[in-house]
Amino acid sequence: MIDLLINKIEEKQNPTVVGLDPRLDFIPEFIKVEEFERHEKTPKAVAEIFLRFNKAIMDETYDLIPAVKPQIAMYEQYGHEGIRAYIETIKYAKQKGLLVIGDIKRSDIASTAEAYSNGHIGEVNIGGESVKIYEEDAITISPYLGHDSIEPFIENCKRFNRGLFILLKTSNAGSGEIQDLEIKGGKVYERVADLISEWGKELVGERGYSSTGAVVGATYPEQLAELRRSIKNVFFLVPGYGAQGGSAKDLKGAFDKNGLGAIINSSRGIIAAYKNQKYINEFTENEFDKAARQAVLDMKADIQSVI
Amino acid sequence: MIDLLINKIEEKQNPTVVGLDPRLDFIPEFIKVEEFERHEKTPKAVAEIFLRFNKAIMDETYDLIPAVKPQIAMYEQYGHEGIRAYIETIKYAKQKGLLVIGDIKRSDIASTAEAYSNGHIGEVNIGGESVKIYEEDAITISPYLGHDSIEPFIENCKRFNRGLFILLKTSNAGSGEIQDLEIKGGKVYERVADLISEWGKELVGERGYSSTGAVVGATYPEQLAELRRSIKNVFFLVPGYGAQGGSAKDLKGAFDKNGLGAIINSSRGIIAAYKNQKYINEFTENEFDKAARQAVLDMKADIQSVI
Repeated sequence: MIDLLINKIEEKQNPTVVGLDPRLDFIPEFIKVEEFERHEKTPKAVAEIFLRFNKAIMDETYDLIPAVKPQIAMYEQYGHEGIRAYIETIKYAKQKGLLVIGDIKRSDIASTAEAYSNGHIGEVNIGGESVKIYEEDAITISPYLGHDSIEPFIENCKRFNRGLFILLKTSNAGSGEIQDLEIKGGKVYERVADLISEWGKELVGERGYSSTGAVVGATYPEQLAELRRSIKNVFFLVPGYGAQGGSAKDLKGAFDKNGLGAIINSSRGIIAAYKNQKYINEFTENEFDKAARQAVLDMKADIQSVI
Repeated sequence: MIDLLINKIEEKQNPTVVGLDPRLDFIPEFIKVEEFERHEKTPKAVAEIFLRFNKAIMDETYDLIPAVKPQIAMYEQYGHEGIRAYIETIKYAKQKGLLVIGDIKRSDIASTAEAYSNGHIGEVNIGGESVKIYEEDAITISPYLGHDSIEPFIENCKRFNRGLFILLKTSNAGSGEIQDLEIKGGKVYERVADLISEWGKELVGERGYSSTGAVVGATYPEQLAELRRSIKNVFFLVPGYGAQGGSAKDLKGAFDKNGLGAIINSSRGIIAAYKNQKYINEFTENEFDKAARQAVLDMKADIQSVI
């Protein structure tokens, strides 16, 4: 998987990923009005609203970006209709040639992790028939349960050419409460870094990076740079740019000397750009997709300035 | 929530919870044959199979147990049809007067955690209307991201009288890799224990326990007993009994002097009892539900022998 991602990043000259994390607040009125009329104020209406919104965003940005990252929570909160919209969003992204990183942050004991793994990045068996369900190219997972909980995901990465991004140092304010606890020889997250690097050794691709990557927040730039130096085979998925407070300067340390090694996520900064002070005079609400395109171009330039 | 759970445990004289973690392997042929005929070998067929199976198990056990714990991974792996079966399982459980602990182990930064929290234990807003989606009474979550990631769940616990079980010391073999790292004054999981105890202080009910509980595996009996002594206000959800190797003797330390303080989960030991050597001569495959009832009665007696 990781070689596919690196190739796409080079092809688009853009190490960014658009977070498809729709919220009804972000979505133009005309879409909501039409779908609420058709389906009333139901989860089904929300699913249709999210799909129209996501497709429009992808239509305007797919030629500029290597990947999208739908956050499953935004869909899951609306029940099965939401999950349907999540799956159809993935399908559409793949039709557009985009890689899909499912931001699912799952984690459980091995026998349960296997179910998550088969559904999301493998295949399930239904009465002797193999069926693919979600088909993300990569997913995010949590390391808290240790290696045996990660193994079922690594198995499917090998079998189906998929990838993982394992939570290492998250972007939120409280991330230090457990992740920064002092242990012998460093901090908890540093030990997790070593474990992730070790777990990924079997999956190192042609470019020296493993399909088992890590999530490291842009909001902790020093740790980000230090981790880039210490775990050289681990590709980073970096949230926290833009709305969460991380700037391009904070990202410099995430990249290696070839400008690779990280993919930067922006969600509301792109998909809700039309509501942003920066774009509000240039684009109307109905041009939300064009505003997203401009925000992608601006983010690309911003990040290229530090690589 | 926790007072509701304690009352139900006392009413049924049974501190156990049945894990509704269906797998096609566990399910009698006649159910699968009928539903595959009706819906072919599709996720929809699996959803119908799981629902029939779960309802039959609940019909035979609801009078004996306080709660059920569906593991969402088993459903989620089949996509939106699976999630529909998960939601309908919860609805049916509540009709039967059972409390529902959704084993979802979610965790994310606050703005995302809020979406999980609203969907599962709160309500979502659709165009000004409040809609309840999953309606579990309690859910499991992971602490790895720290307090700000837990806060949106605690908020809904207060508003909607719901509960949490936060991963503390999990039952799997690799749980020590991160959870047992040595920090100043103890281990990571001991620090997490203190955090959970602290986070739950606002939600302590009439019986001295908080609606913010913890998951502690039966497979680590010494830590279980030690945690029971150290965090007195934290109710435990204890997996690992039966199929995972924990015995009733291992559970003794989970309970306080009143025989409260913990609820013990068994999944395949109950729902697939008819396949177990112990029951195979007594029950046919078609009597899978009666076998589950007997397994619940035997588990109840086994646990009562150590309280």
